[in-house]
Amino acid sequence: MTSSTSPPPAYDHLCSHLKKIAIVQSTAALLEWDQQTKLPRGAGAYRSEQITFFAGEVHRLRTSPQLSQWIEELSDSQQTADPHSVIGGTIAQVKRDYDRQIKLPAALVEELARACSKGHQIWVDARRNNDWAQFAPALKTIIQLKQEQADAIGFADCRYDALLDEFEPGAQTAEVAQILEDLRCALVPLVKSIQSSGVQPPENILNRTYPIDAQKRFAKHASAKIGFDYDRGRLDVTHHPFCTEVGPNDCRITTRYDETFFSSAFFGTLHEAGHGIYEQGLPVEQYGLPAGQYCSLGIHESQSRLWENLVGRSKSFWEHFYQPAVEHFPAALADVPMEQFYAAVNRVTPSLIRVEADEATYNLHIIIRFQLEQELIQGTLSVDDLPQAWNDKYRESLGVVAPDNVDGVLQDVHWSAGLIGYFPTYSLGNLYASQLFDAASRQLGDLNQQFAQGEFNTLKDWLNTQVHQYGRRYSSNQLCEKVTGATLSQNHLMSHLREKLSPIYNL
Amino acid sequence: MTSSTSPPPAYDHLCSHLKKIAIVQSTAALLEWDQQTKLPRGAGAYRSEQITFFAGEVHRLRTSPQLSQWIEELSDSQQTADPHSVIGGTIAQVKRDYDRQIKLPAALVEELARACSKGHQIWVDARRNNDWAQFAPALKTIIQLKQEQADAIGFADCRYDALLDEFEPGAQTAEVAQILEDLRCALVPLVKSIQSSGVQPPENILNRTYPIDAQKRFAKHASAKIGFDYDRGRLDVTHHPFCTEVGPNDCRITTRYDETFFSSAFFGTLHEAGHGIYEQGLPVEQYGLPAGQYCSLGIHESQSRLWENLVGRSKSFWEHFYQPAVEHFPAALADVPMEQFYAAVNRVTPSLIRVEADEATYNLHIIIRFQLEQELIQGTLSVDDLPQAWNDKYRESLGVVAPDNVDGVLQDVHWSAGLIGYFPTYSLGNLYASQLFDAASRQLGDLNQQFAQGEFNTLKDWLNTQVHQYGRRYSSNQLCEKVTGATLSQNHLMSHLREKLSPIYNL
Repeated sequence: MTSSTSPPPAYDHLCSHLKKIAIVQSTAALLEWDQQTKLPRGAGAYRSEQITFFAGEVHRLRTSPQLSQWIEELSDSQQTADPHSVIGGTIAQVKRDYDRQIKLPAALVEELARACSKGHQIWVDARRNNDWAQFAPALKTIIQLKQEQADAIGFADCRYDALLDEFEPGAQTAEVAQILEDLRCALVPLVKSIQSSGVQPPENILNRTYPIDAQKRFAKHASAKIGFDYDRGRLDVTHHPFCTEVGPNDCRITTRYDETFFSSAFFGTLHEAGHGIYEQGLPVEQYGLPAGQYCSLGIHESQSRLWENLVGRSKSFWEHFYQPAVEHFPAALADVPMEQFYAAVNRVTPSLIRVEADEATYNLHIIIRFQLEQELIQGTLSVDDLPQAWNDKYRESLGVVAPDNVDGVLQDVHWSAGLIGYFPTYSLGNLYASQLFDAASRQLGDLNQQFAQGEFNTLKDWLNTQVHQYGRRYSSNQLCEKVTGATLSQNHLMSHLREKLSPIYNL
Repeated sequence: MTSSTSPPPAYDHLCSHLKKIAIVQSTAALLEWDQQTKLPRGAGAYRSEQITFFAGEVHRLRTSPQLSQWIEELSDSQQTADPHSVIGGTIAQVKRDYDRQIKLPAALVEELARACSKGHQIWVDARRNNDWAQFAPALKTIIQLKQEQADAIGFADCRYDALLDEFEPGAQTAEVAQILEDLRCALVPLVKSIQSSGVQPPENILNRTYPIDAQKRFAKHASAKIGFDYDRGRLDVTHHPFCTEVGPNDCRITTRYDETFFSSAFFGTLHEAGHGIYEQGLPVEQYGLPAGQYCSLGIHESQSRLWENLVGRSKSFWEHFYQPAVEHFPAALADVPMEQFYAAVNRVTPSLIRVEADEATYNLHIIIRFQLEQELIQGTLSVDDLPQAWNDKYRESLGVVAPDNVDGVLQDVHWSAGLIGYFPTYSLGNLYASQLFDAASRQLGDLNQQFAQGEFNTLKDWLNTQVHQYGRRYSSNQLCEKVTGATLSQNHLMSHLREKLSPIYNL
């Protein structure tokens, strides 16, 4: 019925429908971006109504009966046989999304959107007021709705599987728990040996005065240099940094500035720019279709972590960027040798704030959240007991306890926005980043030599070709095997950390 | 069938439908605000697609067959008998909108939205490049589509009537032409007598250096003081200043700063804040319904002009604000007596740029555009001949000719955005402003004494009660008669100008 070269008519209908969804979703993304960056104080309630309305519209479009007709019609086509081809991958992923969406009642989708939009606003206030009690009722509502969501979707092993699958398609809680436990077992002795090394890189260098205007210019300069295209994106200020897409050529990243802490905005911007480079590397002509969408949050995070840590915290990166850094911040850095600065930005020390944690202890922050949110969803931990459980785990894993909830359980935006099952993808991202970077190094020769000369395009182009161009046509596991020749393991990250940290800490 | 106190069920359905339209429209307003303030360079094409899509959605919702059913059902109700009551006014205005919308084919609506969004982007580039030829084809398309729109809507007298009616419901081209001709006949001798007075207020005071940060602070301070609520709004920077509503508590105004011209941003901000005070004064609970919408663009403009000119350029205003002005701009103003500054901000001189024109010659700029756009729509003037016709009229009415099209025919955003029939509402606004202000003065006692003490709430509250609270329940003509006791005339504006300018120019 259809030729093997031109797609069947149902495919065109399907694509038009998906592109319509993309218009509504990208507009909803603008409503959310604007809520976090520009919204007047008094405008929150109506913004929730707007976001709720479009969440309902998206759900309606994603569960349109026409979709299942087209999917059925196309599943016979020989062009869909290969699930990694553009057409085959599109059908397979649309079917996956549809099967998931159709299980969610529209009322639940709207209720979740409303609860999360309100929850976010309450969280902002509660954080400002250091008032956990203000936030707890909103979080209870969100947890309950997420449990309902998991039950509606269904799961084989545990409720959390259904939520994790939204962010890391195909991942199983038990497998992720195992790999993160392996990682924890390798990390804890490394961190201990660092703490008992007697070496303390002079972090206070990074707590000198770094004027915010100069920070803005320097972060923008460096993020553009590694490949974030500001003609197709922008950088703004928010409480919690993020990256969002408002269109195929409109990727918006945010950061926050601290005049007396260099790393917060600089590495934060490199991180978000890494996300942005991924978004900007997805095929524009496939925008809104699975072949133009990111693979998984783990792969997304691998791109941010790769640029933030494997590139941005490498010695070769600073061989290129240290001179400009001194020019931007002469008062802070004129008397600091590059080696000392390099050691400072790689200082490992257990701390309270996830987004400011170092490369090694960061994953311990994640594992705490991963465990707590599993318990919240299983119902074995109540929201009321959460602050205590949070502090207990921090004491146990990192040896530190927050003086108040602002630097404890209130520090992250995620739960307030209903993002549960999201945290483990951060550590998966760290693992994928190292494994991908090792593959790139094997194929591209001495990357460090390139970085030292300010050359980052070779690596970016490799990522464009090896990772970005495929969109969602491979799962994260499949992509990892295809590009690196092996399934995910913690070895690459641990080798990277040991190689970098041993000389700094005389291990 | 229905009691006289609770509205019929069809009314609730109708209101829900209108509130859904408001959500889509306010979101489209955000897409447009963002396009003008924040959009990355490369993102224009997709933004046009987004705006076009929502224009289509709004049209679909506004022409839903259910609407006509509800209207018909409700037109029998005794509650609709009074067209100025909340319910009666709602039905009457919804019927008016529906009858107008239903005449427009969806394809034309989408084509217009697309042409105007693209037209705007081309205009920005053409203006930057001083390249009329770059813009002309886009304008031709827009004019042709506006002619089609007028023909689809229909008209009694001339095509332009159909377009004018969109912005000034109920106004007739012939009537407006007559009142503006009366105004022109009164203005020209006044401007001539000023030019031959031999007096030249020292405008160069206003061209000293006014640091932009201080301008921002001072404009924000003054606009908040007259009553613009920044908890329910914000102020940003754009090429062409405007005011838009992104929600019932989210009114966004914009301005542009010129370091060597005080008036541009300051009076521009007072102007847009005046628009914003109107929007913020509309009944929030009626948001999206006619009783919560502005009456006409003429009335809207009367609110901006009233605060910009009748308040902001009054001597009593500066009796309160001059000391803070000197504190904000000591280098520019420390040696300037208030009287001299007051004369400078009221300087009358024929000039090239409408938005920077003085209170007297401003209306001559409008009358030129009003005449030209009538001819473009009637087809008696071609787009190719427009720059020449523009320059001819400027030479004739104002005695000045732009050195290039940037300061000539390319200066205004309106035509690029399809806003034809819009310009005359600026002069109607000036006329309404003076007539309303005279009524307020009669009722509230000595307003100037209040202004001199920094008291602006009395006037704002009066406007809230007399004008804002009614939304669209009265037409501009009806509202004018209701509040001022007379139909619109040019006498109030001319008296105001003569009274203010005579002492300054020794007339």
